[in-house]
Amino acid sequence: MPKISQKGQRMPASPIRKLTPFADKAKLEGKKVYHLNIGQPDIETPEGMLNAIKNIDFKVWAYTPSEGTLSYRKKLTEYYNKLGYNITPENIIVTTGGSEAITIGMMACLDPGDEVIIPEPFYANYNGFANQSDVVVKPILSYIDNGFALPPISEFEKLITDKTKAIIICNPNNPTGYLYSQEELDALKELALKYDLYLFSDEAYREFCYDGRQFISPMHLSGLDENVIVMDTVSKRYSACGARLGCLITKNKAVLAAGLKFAQARLSAGMVEQIAGEAAVDTPDEYFAAVNKEYTKRRDTLVTALNKIEGVYCPNPGGAFYVVAKFPIDNADKFCQWMLESFSYENQTVMMAPATGFYSTPGAGSNEVRMAYVLNNDDLNKAMLCLAEALKVYPGRAADI
Amino acid sequence: MPKISQKGQRMPASPIRKLTPFADKAKLEGKKVYHLNIGQPDIETPEGMLNAIKNIDFKVWAYTPSEGTLSYRKKLTEYYNKLGYNITPENIIVTTGGSEAITIGMMACLDPGDEVIIPEPFYANYNGFANQSDVVVKPILSYIDNGFALPPISEFEKLITDKTKAIIICNPNNPTGYLYSQEELDALKELALKYDLYLFSDEAYREFCYDGRQFISPMHLSGLDENVIVMDTVSKRYSACGARLGCLITKNKAVLAAGLKFAQARLSAGMVEQIAGEAAVDTPDEYFAAVNKEYTKRRDTLVTALNKIEGVYCPNPGGAFYVVAKFPIDNADKFCQWMLESFSYENQTVMMAPATGFYSTPGAGSNEVRMAYVLNNDDLNKAMLCLAEALKVYPGRAADI
Ligand SMILES: Cc1ncc(COP(=O)(O)O)c(C=O)c1O
Ligand SMILES: Cc1ncc(COP(=O)(O)O)c(C=O)c1O
Repeated sequence: MPKISQKGQRMPASPIRKLTPFADKAKLEGKKVYHLNIGQPDIETPEGMLNAIKNIDFKVWAYTPSEGTLSYRKKLTEYYNKLGYNITPENIIVTTGGSEAITIGMMACLDPGDEVIIPEPFYANYNGFANQSDVVVKPILSYIDNGFALPPISEFEKLITDKTKAIIICNPNNPTGYLYSQEELDALKELALKYDLYLFSDEAYREFCYDGRQFISPMHLSGLDENVIVMDTVSKRYSACGARLGCLITKNKAVLAAGLKFAQARLSAGMVEQIAGEAAVDTPDEYFAAVNKEYTKRRDTLVTALNKIEGVYCPNPGGAFYVVAKFPIDNADKFCQWMLESFSYENQTVMMAPATGFYSTPGAGSNEVRMAYVLNNDDLNKAMLCLAEALKVYPGRAADI
Repeated sequence: MPKISQKGQRMPASPIRKLTPFADKAKLEGKKVYHLNIGQPDIETPEGMLNAIKNIDFKVWAYTPSEGTLSYRKKLTEYYNKLGYNITPENIIVTTGGSEAITIGMMACLDPGDEVIIPEPFYANYNGFANQSDVVVKPILSYIDNGFALPPISEFEKLITDKTKAIIICNPNNPTGYLYSQEELDALKELALKYDLYLFSDEAYREFCYDGRQFISPMHLSGLDENVIVMDTVSKRYSACGARLGCLITKNKAVLAAGLKFAQARLSAGMVEQIAGEAAVDTPDEYFAAVNKEYTKRRDTLVTALNKIEGVYCPNPGGAFYVVAKFPIDNADKFCQWMLESFSYENQTVMMAPATGFYSTPGAGSNEVRMAYVLNNDDLNKAMLCLAEALKVYPGRAADI
């Protein structure tokens, strides 16, 4: 019997799905499970986008150009230039989700053994993508006590070797919701220039910034054209995760040329999706205003409720739709599993993602949990009630922190 | 300025698109260009599939399970079991095109430096996918003189080292159209078992077999459950290349488990596509009968016309919609470029793919050209007329062969 690859053996399983069998069992037992574990929004996809699908008008469902249709790239250019990115359609490669933008970006820039520095906790699948390319992730701890702000640049510098090729940031951050400041981005710019590094900017949650705070992209910084590679997606922006539509943006011509070759090998992104994605750019501002208001309310509900629970601490993040909170527990993996397996309150329980899956430093995040506020306010309140009761009786409760 | 990866430098550009700038120029000059270079069929997508898109009925365009929706995998199981594959939905991972089935299969089974043997000429993007995974392709020549039949097993054995992990076959073959016989598959089975190799079977063209000949898959062979990995796609079957929908099929549980982890990292395949793919399985038999009849006619037209041209030889392939023909020329790359740049007949010319792009042995295929019969009969006839005239006057014409 032939053996699977070492890469296949090493490949991390999705930390968000690890507990699914326990959730399924809980449901079979008749428990109501509040899902705060996944980043699948419940917000409706804009009507214009769905109508574009229903109104398709072609006879042959054909390949599109590997870099994406010109029509869609032009429309995207409009969108990005309103944000001040100052790009042309030639700076865009349309991808199958933000996921593929990340893998194409990594393959174009990094070879096996090359190192990429990522502030942790970070989007867990970066580990998987790095493993696919035999790239080495060098994590750098950020801390809940200052809301997961960017670690000091001196900490980055300690990690830099001649193998270091890139830094990845996710802004606003998944899992912490942290929104980087102008100062933090400026500091990253200096670092990227000093050591000649790529700065990958994962902007999946760009649209989700709260309290009037401004989103800043490395695309806004001058002098960084050769270094910045943006990974974007329509998944969260338009609540269209199932579209599998994203893009890679860069002004670096060599990266574009290499990226295009990887894009050509897999032929093209989806045709219907690009039609829908083009329509989505015309989504009215009111849609985003309403979504923003809804998420702000949910975040406030969640953060307030969490901080009221004895022994719990949760920073109030500026963006995305996640929080990472610290619980008075021995072990987040055990706790989250226990919530599904052994606990219920009025026949309800909560599914959360242990933060350990978002760290690659062993042991880090063991008393932290990530929650996505993708449920309505009412359900969030019920979930928090449930959680408060659970923490009272959890056998692995730690001395208060 | 940071450097792109060596992988990005090495990545082969698509041989099918290399001549596109020359075709664009020819069109600008007002020439009519017959496109025989690409595998984009002109056949209409089944109505049921297109209607499924138009009739979508959801409010949130959501992620689907990473392995594909159960509903689609069940329907696919019906389809495959009619073919005698004897599988369950658990044997399927739904992918973003056949392209992703190949990359996931490679990553699950092969590590950097591992070797895969592929009879050449082969689908050029295997080179790209292997490069992505730092896998080494060991080509093994097949020859036009016997219609590109499977090379003798003794030739495979000469290439086997302790790094050899897999064989890839594409059946019916792109670019040659060759359809493997029962004897050839039995021989591959013995080889795979003897050396404990994976047998990757790319079946993108399964539906396209002519002259009443039967398609045989390694899935039909007994005792090979741990070795066989099928890569499939709806692209050609339903003329739905823009759907980006495929799947990987295997009975090997370790490969399924590893493959699922790679699938989880990229989250999911497209949702609308899986709905459409499910509807496609109910495409009436008459659709395929009509398509088959059409392609048979075109193949006959093309092969007959080619063999009538002085100095040209083209085998009559049993499947797919490609032929590789031998021309009395010095260099296929030069010739195909010259056709676009310097030749026209009644203001028309033909775009073809030099076969060199489908070989990885240097120099091989230098007097061969691949043509896809994705045009209607009339256009094919005109294109062949044009080609005959071109070969008369091509300055690099070789002594007759
Ligand atoms: C930070 C981040 N990046 C990228 C992705 C990938 O998204 P997609 O492939 O759906 O575009 C996600 C999805 O949750 C994410 O949270
Ligand atoms: C032999 C072969 N395999 C795989 C593919 C990939 O097809 P897709 O990714 O569209 O499913 C193609 C496309 O032309 C092909 O010819």
